[in-house]
Amino acid sequence: MALVNPHGGGDLKPLLITGDALPAALSRAQSLPQVPVSSREAGDIIMLGIGGFTPLDGFMTHADWQAVCDGMKLASGLFWPIPITLSTTPEIADGLSIGSDIALTDPAGTILATMRLTEKYRIDKAHECAMVFKTTDLDHPGVKMVMEQGEVNLAGPIQVLSQGGFPEKYGDLFLTPQQTRALFTEMGWSKVAAFQTRNPMHRSHEYLAKVAIETCDGVLIHSLLGNLKPGDIPAEVRSKAIATLVEHYFVNNTIVQAGYPLDMRYAGPREALLHAVFRQNYGCSHLIVGRDHAGVGSYYGPFDAHQIFDEIPAGSLETQPLKIDWTFWCYKCGGMASARTCPHEPADRLLLSGTKLREMLSTNAEVPPEFSRPEVLAILRDYYATLN
Amino acid sequence: MALVNPHGGGDLKPLLITGDALPAALSRAQSLPQVPVSSREAGDIIMLGIGGFTPLDGFMTHADWQAVCDGMKLASGLFWPIPITLSTTPEIADGLSIGSDIALTDPAGTILATMRLTEKYRIDKAHECAMVFKTTDLDHPGVKMVMEQGEVNLAGPIQVLSQGGFPEKYGDLFLTPQQTRALFTEMGWSKVAAFQTRNPMHRSHEYLAKVAIETCDGVLIHSLLGNLKPGDIPAEVRSKAIATLVEHYFVNNTIVQAGYPLDMRYAGPREALLHAVFRQNYGCSHLIVGRDHAGVGSYYGPFDAHQIFDEIPAGSLETQPLKIDWTFWCYKCGGMASARTCPHEPADRLLLSGTKLREMLSTNAEVPPEFSRPEVLAILRDYYATLN
Repeated sequence: MALVNPHGGGDLKPLLITGDALPAALSRAQSLPQVPVSSREAGDIIMLGIGGFTPLDGFMTHADWQAVCDGMKLASGLFWPIPITLSTTPEIADGLSIGSDIALTDPAGTILATMRLTEKYRIDKAHECAMVFKTTDLDHPGVKMVMEQGEVNLAGPIQVLSQGGFPEKYGDLFLTPQQTRALFTEMGWSKVAAFQTRNPMHRSHEYLAKVAIETCDGVLIHSLLGNLKPGDIPAEVRSKAIATLVEHYFVNNTIVQAGYPLDMRYAGPREALLHAVFRQNYGCSHLIVGRDHAGVGSYYGPFDAHQIFDEIPAGSLETQPLKIDWTFWCYKCGGMASARTCPHEPADRLLLSGTKLREMLSTNAEVPPEFSRPEVLAILRDYYATLN
Repeated sequence: MALVNPHGGGDLKPLLITGDALPAALSRAQSLPQVPVSSREAGDIIMLGIGGFTPLDGFMTHADWQAVCDGMKLASGLFWPIPITLSTTPEIADGLSIGSDIALTDPAGTILATMRLTEKYRIDKAHECAMVFKTTDLDHPGVKMVMEQGEVNLAGPIQVLSQGGFPEKYGDLFLTPQQTRALFTEMGWSKVAAFQTRNPMHRSHEYLAKVAIETCDGVLIHSLLGNLKPGDIPAEVRSKAIATLVEHYFVNNTIVQAGYPLDMRYAGPREALLHAVFRQNYGCSHLIVGRDHAGVGSYYGPFDAHQIFDEIPAGSLETQPLKIDWTFWCYKCGGMASARTCPHEPADRLLLSGTKLREMLSTNAEVPPEFSRPEVLAILRDYYATLN
């Protein structure tokens, strides 16, 4: 059995320049007009660099943007659920000529990529938000990001010159799609489920991963390493907490833990589809989709991200959703369960909000072991202690 | 989404004569030469009658027998893992003419079917046993059944005239493939996992079914209603124990409990394949295959029945195995787990042999609730009390 194909059916398409070609490309980039990019755009550049957004070759044109917003496909017809665009101010855009090369720099001024500028265009941002986020409410962090971006989009193929410090910062945790694929193949895996996370894993998350392990070769616990909401647990703490969970409660060679460079968009169902697209590139045949996947606030129904997989055309994705209901400890079941497997009352179930858990950890109150493993809680307590 | 197709890709092929045609067929059958059949053969006749063995039209010819033994396919090339044959003594066989109709009667003398006799043939029984059971040891109950059968096999298409008392004895528990398919469709199910059982369900079995429910529309708990080994729990007690488990520990509309009329053959991996074939006819897209599926003694490796699904030609079956490892309660995990999801030591796990459990139930010793639900244990205790 082989791994799923990269999205689009061809080879992985990493846009990163490496080896002997890099110094010359970097030195040439110094002389180009510089365009600063946002944190979200920087994450997208790194993802394009490592081939996670295969088969895209750069930032989207107006035709791609329109087709993705309106029909979840590129102008070529290939399935793609969320625009991958670069924006800038009209002042900067006016100084750039179509057909010329430009350098894209991160907020710290580092050159991340060069781009052959093929198009400058304006978009109806509210339309993008209405289609992608299903809301134009500025309280939605994804909407805010789009509404506050520059008024002009720049399109063109890119060459990526940096991994934005991710390998240095995260070491073995930062694996490229080529690396995860090689690892899965080496371990003899073909049926691999991705578990998307931006939080430490408590028993409900452990249960989701274990449901997948029961019938798959293994699970990729795949953490977001880019930016998320204030108050969220930082990636270093989260990955340490996950590593201790894996060490104490998972069987050897059933888990790979890794991270990817994107910022959260909080686009709920559409982002779940994007998560499936790039997990296909990482070699995962399945994506675990739980309750309110990639959602924020109450903008999405808890299972909108399940349903959207049934609404896209057949064959859009090789990677399939592993849809799992809300999970929890149930005292009457005497075990972990989901709303599909536990027939008991809400009062029989152990539920703690994120806010309540943070409060318990900060005040050293005892968290029930049915909610989270003591080894995980110890790491989170240490982290909260540093905040106090 | 639709249910899986019946095996062979055509319509279900129930061979049961019903309605207005039945009285005449029965009365005609009275005048035919009578051939008594064994309990196993009687179960096969009922299964042919209700379409569970679609697309077979009767008992196998020598060419089918040979192709099934040697290559797990019918003479036509269609996948089929175990011979479905009828045998008799040479004395009876000598009195029957090729081309004539005969009546097949159960051990109590009831006419179950008529058959147009197309072939009489002798087989190498030891060859069948070596191929199907992987042993010729007479201590193996399936081998014993084959070695003790009559010396002549009779082949031909059959018309089934009776359901052998199953509907009367089991009521709503005895569902035909047409009935389970109609039920699944009514409930909106398309991804349905069959859970094969010949025992009451303890927590390890509940866990197997619940792993399937997490990602399927529902589970068919499908009990063998034919004969099994002495000492096994009778079907009525078993189904009552399962019904109470479902009532207290499963979500409404995630389980259908039903039974099927076959005797156990204990053919391990080959029988697992037969279980998948007829579950496809019942409308199940998946068959849960646990440890030592359909095995007996130590004739088969614990996961031979997993591996055989990888060895058959692609496309042999629409129904796919849901392979699950050995399951148990683990005190260190604090929950149900399998050898794929629990990394702890055997000493951390709660294991009770069937013998030990029977002893505890007979002597009213307390069985841990992590092993079996108290509602289930109460029913089994009552049953053992009637034996004492």
